[in-house]
Amino acid sequence: MTDFALLKDLVVKNTTKIVLLVLDGIGGLPVMPGGPTALEAAHTSNMDRLAAEGICGLHEPIGPGITPGSGPSHLAVFGYDPIKYEIGRGVLEAVGIDFALTPQDLAARGNFCTVDAAGNITDRRAGRIATEISAKLAARLQAEVKLPGVQVFVSPVREHRFVLVLRGEGLVPALSETDPQVLGKPPLPVQPLAPKAAHTADLVNRFVDQARRILADAHPANMVLLRGFAKHPTLPQMADVYGLRAAAIAAYPMYRGLAKLVGMTALPTGMALDDEFAALEQGWADYDYFYLHVKKTDSSGEDGNYEAKVHVIEEVDRLVPRLMALKPDVVVITGDHSTPAALKGHSWHPVPTLLWAPTCRPDLTTSFGERACTQGSLGRFPAVDIMPLALAHALRLTKFGA
Amino acid sequence: MTDFALLKDLVVKNTTKIVLLVLDGIGGLPVMPGGPTALEAAHTSNMDRLAAEGICGLHEPIGPGITPGSGPSHLAVFGYDPIKYEIGRGVLEAVGIDFALTPQDLAARGNFCTVDAAGNITDRRAGRIATEISAKLAARLQAEVKLPGVQVFVSPVREHRFVLVLRGEGLVPALSETDPQVLGKPPLPVQPLAPKAAHTADLVNRFVDQARRILADAHPANMVLLRGFAKHPTLPQMADVYGLRAAAIAAYPMYRGLAKLVGMTALPTGMALDDEFAALEQGWADYDYFYLHVKKTDSSGEDGNYEAKVHVIEEVDRLVPRLMALKPDVVVITGDHSTPAALKGHSWHPVPTLLWAPTCRPDLTTSFGERACTQGSLGRFPAVDIMPLALAHALRLTKFGA
Repeated sequence: MTDFALLKDLVVKNTTKIVLLVLDGIGGLPVMPGGPTALEAAHTSNMDRLAAEGICGLHEPIGPGITPGSGPSHLAVFGYDPIKYEIGRGVLEAVGIDFALTPQDLAARGNFCTVDAAGNITDRRAGRIATEISAKLAARLQAEVKLPGVQVFVSPVREHRFVLVLRGEGLVPALSETDPQVLGKPPLPVQPLAPKAAHTADLVNRFVDQARRILADAHPANMVLLRGFAKHPTLPQMADVYGLRAAAIAAYPMYRGLAKLVGMTALPTGMALDDEFAALEQGWADYDYFYLHVKKTDSSGEDGNYEAKVHVIEEVDRLVPRLMALKPDVVVITGDHSTPAALKGHSWHPVPTLLWAPTCRPDLTTSFGERACTQGSLGRFPAVDIMPLALAHALRLTKFGA
Repeated sequence: MTDFALLKDLVVKNTTKIVLLVLDGIGGLPVMPGGPTALEAAHTSNMDRLAAEGICGLHEPIGPGITPGSGPSHLAVFGYDPIKYEIGRGVLEAVGIDFALTPQDLAARGNFCTVDAAGNITDRRAGRIATEISAKLAARLQAEVKLPGVQVFVSPVREHRFVLVLRGEGLVPALSETDPQVLGKPPLPVQPLAPKAAHTADLVNRFVDQARRILADAHPANMVLLRGFAKHPTLPQMADVYGLRAAAIAAYPMYRGLAKLVGMTALPTGMALDDEFAALEQGWADYDYFYLHVKKTDSSGEDGNYEAKVHVIEEVDRLVPRLMALKPDVVVITGDHSTPAALKGHSWHPVPTLLWAPTCRPDLTTSFGERACTQGSLGRFPAVDIMPLALAHALRLTKFGA
């Protein structure tokens, strides 16, 4: 585990620059018995050269056998213990739509749902109504719901999903969820899970009651379900614990949001890979640490599209020389987790990792791939080790003890 | 982390003997891209044979990315959690000159410095005065300073450096330092960092005031700076936790001192490698565990002298048959940390480790070097694991549970 207290004592100033290139869901599985993974099948001469000069291994985002979501796996790669620093679902959803949460805010994931005349749920997702309809209903809720002493924000996400944010003093997220997770029953009232959450539970129940009335004519989206109540976590900030001016380059809002939670500045970027690398070049002078996020390795894995994943990896490899032309001092290429096309989803398989720096002691690895990484000197290691290793290779940590 | 409570329960008597051969700073880096490290370049047929028969890996003294000082890294190799059992700077300095600290003693690192007529510091190191001059001034301070209820010891170290030891009841090391770390300012008064340290702070301030008067005519060494206040740590003793009669063979006092802190007996030895191996032979009958320290791998690394480091390693290899002729049951050959000649200092790179015993399950490693060790069955592992592994291979631990 990263010992922030220890690291803070050891951090020294330097002008070195670190790049963390995250190919989301990079790890994979063969699609034919004994065949290559997508990363192994891809032609990656640039990354292979870095692997030969640097050190390789496979990181465990959370622990052996644990399949991570994107929130905890990113936190781990940023050096934050993902079990200690849990980000609530409500916050993750808010962050995912670029909602600017404040420390006062209580966020929840919302669903529009359908209830019958007796108030029992008949569709937990309101027939997956179009986002445009959701947006109108959300606006109506935000305009019409009135709660004493708190501001109410209702923001659409996609289809039937929205984010509820209450802003006010003393909100406590220790609340039970309203979704009974079965059909034919009414939504559950929110219960406080701690005595001090009683007032917050009352406010949320009032929101639900008012929403029921306001949405009465909005069938199929005539009711709401709420879960994942959470407040903005107060995470140690990268400037404080690592002494780094950190920047995030991510086309998708959730990843920008995650990066902002740990104190990174999100740089403006377009959606394309080339745009992201251009943003890196533009921001180069002003930061010490750059997190660059590539989404499509993950989405092609989620789609079960092995060939697309191979293609994305090759596209990234083609851009690696642009990164190296900036003369970084440390480059880490890895993923936040594995997303094998064969499984069409995130998996627990450890994540190929390459750390390149002139201060590396080279190992025997000469290519970047899952099998090759098993022979690397980093071995199989916790993802939270990446950050202290990057700092060390960037000569940004002084000696511990005399 | 070594769980002493667990180990203590499992330790059984045996007549087996363990040797820990520490080549200080053994780990290195290539000096040419893709080239060998000093250990890889050295001809080490004896160690290679032990590597082939035993098991290899790379230890992390403190944790990934952390560059250790000699104190914590040795503690780790002795099986002591180096973060839990921190040894203060003052104690390490005292230990380094063979000062026999008692549990009552408060030790600090001292500098002679130069102040101007206004009392502002003009040279924090008093022009690095010769050790002989320091020795005279230290003797004068020790003779003339009078503090109520405590004994005062002032011992020269080297050049402008000395150790201050106060001996008495109730001394508390929670004190701020007097060195402002800048020129043009006066030394800072010592502040207690805890209420119970008030009396100790007062004593140290009196020492400084008296020293100022006593040294008034001793320009450039006309004042003192003090830092690193620390007391003798009470470390678990090797006899208690491991059931071992442990001996240390180290030419340099700091390593003897560190070994004594964990309960080893320091055997008399000359400075040369041959002397140390002779001391091992002489003490062989009387102890179960031998720590033999080789300094020059580290000092040649610190000097940036790759060839000298290669040579020292070859010299040690030449002596390995003398060690094996004693018929040890377990031999561990490693370093306390890496000191690459390329970096001219300690580094965070994991440390090549070889464990030889007839009870080893051999791995695929056939030579002793950094790259080879990445393929060893010990993998990359915490340094504190060395001690339980040595005990196990010496058949000195019984079964846990039924």
